Amino acid sequence: MSLKVAERALVPPFIVMDVMSAAAAREATGERVLHLEVGQPSTGLPSAAAARLADRIATERLGYTVALGLPILRERIARYYQEAHGTTVSPDRILVTTGSSAAFQLAFLAAFAPGDRVGVAAPGYPAYRHILKALGVEPVTLPVGPDSRYQPTVAVLEASGERLDGLILASPSNPTGTVIPPEDLRALTAWCDDRGVRLISDEIYHGIVYGEPALSAAGLTPNALVINSFSKYYAMTGWRLGWMVAPPDMIRPLECLAQNMFISAPTLSQYAGLYAMDCIEELEANVARYAANRALLLKTLPKAGFDRLAPADGAFYLYADVSRLTNDSADFCARMLRETGVAATPGLDFDAEQGHRFVRFSFAGATDDMEEAADRLTAWMGRIGA
Amino acid sequence: MSLKVAERALVPPFIVMDVMSAAAAREATGERVLHLEVGQPSTGLPSAAAARLADRIATERLGYTVALGLPILRERIARYYQEAHGTTVSPDRILVTTGSSAAFQLAFLAAFAPGDRVGVAAPGYPAYRHILKALGVEPVTLPVGPDSRYQPTVAVLEASGERLDGLILASPSNPTGTVIPPEDLRALTAWCDDRGVRLISDEIYHGIVYGEPALSAAGLTPNALVINSFSKYYAMTGWRLGWMVAPPDMIRPLECLAQNMFISAPTLSQYAGLYAMDCIEELEANVARYAANRALLLKTLPKAGFDRLAPADGAFYLYADVSRLTNDSADFCARMLRETGVAATPGLDFDAEQGHRFVRFSFAGATDDMEEAADRLTAWMGRIGA
Repeated sequence: MSLKVAERALVPPFIVMDVMSAAAAREATGERVLHLEVGQPSTGLPSAAAARLADRIATERLGYTVALGLPILRERIARYYQEAHGTTVSPDRILVTTGSSAAFQLAFLAAFAPGDRVGVAAPGYPAYRHILKALGVEPVTLPVGPDSRYQPTVAVLEASGERLDGLILASPSNPTGTVIPPEDLRALTAWCDDRGVRLISDEIYHGIVYGEPALSAAGLTPNALVINSFSKYYAMTGWRLGWMVAPPDMIRPLECLAQNMFISAPTLSQYAGLYAMDCIEELEANVARYAANRALLLKTLPKAGFDRLAPADGAFYLYADVSRLTNDSADFCARMLRETGVAATPGLDFDAEQGHRFVRFSFAGATDDMEEAADRLTAWMGRIGA
Repeated sequence: MSLKVAERALVPPFIVMDVMSAAAAREATGERVLHLEVGQPSTGLPSAAAARLADRIATERLGYTVALGLPILRERIARYYQEAHGTTVSPDRILVTTGSSAAFQLAFLAAFAPGDRVGVAAPGYPAYRHILKALGVEPVTLPVGPDSRYQPTVAVLEASGERLDGLILASPSNPTGTVIPPEDLRALTAWCDDRGVRLISDEIYHGIVYGEPALSAAGLTPNALVINSFSKYYAMTGWRLGWMVAPPDMIRPLECLAQNMFISAPTLSQYAGLYAMDCIEELEANVARYAANRALLLKTLPKAGFDRLAPADGAFYLYADVSRLTNDSADFCARMLRETGVAATPGLDFDAEQGHRFVRFSFAGATDDMEEAADRLTAWMGRIGA
């Protein structure tokens, strides 16, 4: 008898993964591929933090931690809010998670009932939509564009006419890099609180900004679920570590869910994160590299013909409107990879409706790679007459 | 405006966590507590594996892996099925997961629609029930006892009269340690296949057995989702690493779900698991310690008055029927901890109906601790006149 696969499990893949496979296939033939497709730093755990881990591995059992995470790490994260944002957050409100991925799952399960409606910006991080759907929650697409700097605003929400139970904000945003201005974030937070809309604030690109620091929703309302990660600023993607600041009345339900669904975040990763938080000099050098990469691409890409870029206030992405060049960004990216060896991500991952006319370039890599990519793209765009 | 917490998020806590907190509080006063409550080995990652990790931490970025896991690890796991079970499993059918916890989430989402009914034995691992409920799937309790060696059988399923969409089997079982006999597992697998019931086979205690090796469902049917873990035999609890063998038609949906919900299992943990699979000598020494602990407790506990024990074929648990001593195992365990410093887990975690008359002792600790615990319990049971 044949057995079913549950319909809710049929979520779309990340298209970027297909690009990565194609890029890897080219590399296997000996070609030098420039990776502007992947949203992860080309550097790893800060070296001083790495050095401090060796002893623990050699001498400790590294068993489960309590589900909420190592108390010393929760205290350190609370101190971060004081230092970075001047905001007092009790360590009791902090839950250490297995990457922001686990935090999103826990947040969505704890905050939303099946059938609830949650607003997500398009373009935006695709996993929001896919995890919501897998958990029976309805993602409500909020199209945003250059008019609102690719971010939801109160005006966008009001104009949409949508009834929402929740709203996901990401600032800086993936794929656009735009930061929600402080006055807008305050207005959005108040709008949510006034209407009983649960705000999920994705702050995983905090610390990687090129102008004013991004505001944390943790300082604006106790009702938001504020999610952060060690993957981006701390350059710890593969360690799978993140955290959440939750309202006091949600901590116990979140703790019980986490006990059952995750037991605990990886123990060694929790120590790695703790140590990484002391490595500000090395981490700021990473941000300086991203800033140099960004400046280089902002100078060269428009000349090459990629002249309609979202304002890259933060994160390490340039989101380019390529509708002047193609109506099929997936095909365009495949051709670019084939003809230049530069990998980039078609916008379809981030926006099912409009993504066919956008491309995301990640500048989290080495500056040499960015220079080489800019040269190749400039020559190629000249060749194809763009 | 006050905001709701979703009802599905209100899952019960692990009671063992409360016992651990109480035990930790006693330890903080300087008392020596003997930990027979926790289901994790007292040893950690094999030392040879630990030594091989240091270099990777110092020199590698340790970024994300592909969602299915490192190819070399998937191949090594496939080889394990050949070596341990004489079963050919293609590496393509193996998904590396963030502990068995992530495997259960993925399996339940991919195999079951909201409202589906999944059979779970009572007593059994509580997270099955709680994750199923959080994902909108209905756990159907199958009470089992000494008559069927605390395991479901075809007779138990038929007698229950329950209509099932899925069935979870755990062999060796937590909390009882019983192994499903090969002929029973064959019959259960065929029963599921005949009826289109999706079998989830939890094999996380494989390798820790005191008689014949436990059979893997991977060798009996291509339809089962077979889940395993590096936490128990490989003593890697805090590394959060496990795997799943899935039917070929479920791999792509599982891969897409995993991309969105987890991105990948922790990268360093994947290498740790790969290396641990080469450390059989050290791992078998762990199993020999569990066997010695088991023999010691099987000799002393019955004399002390814990004389109704489930057959501990595998895992590292003794599940004791204490109905002769108490009708409130939570209170009994609290008193035992207070008066002897021996921590054990009341059966309520594993069986909401009958758990009030059971206690689970874990013998995953050091043999010295087991000896001391047996002495204290013998003296105490004499004192309280049991």
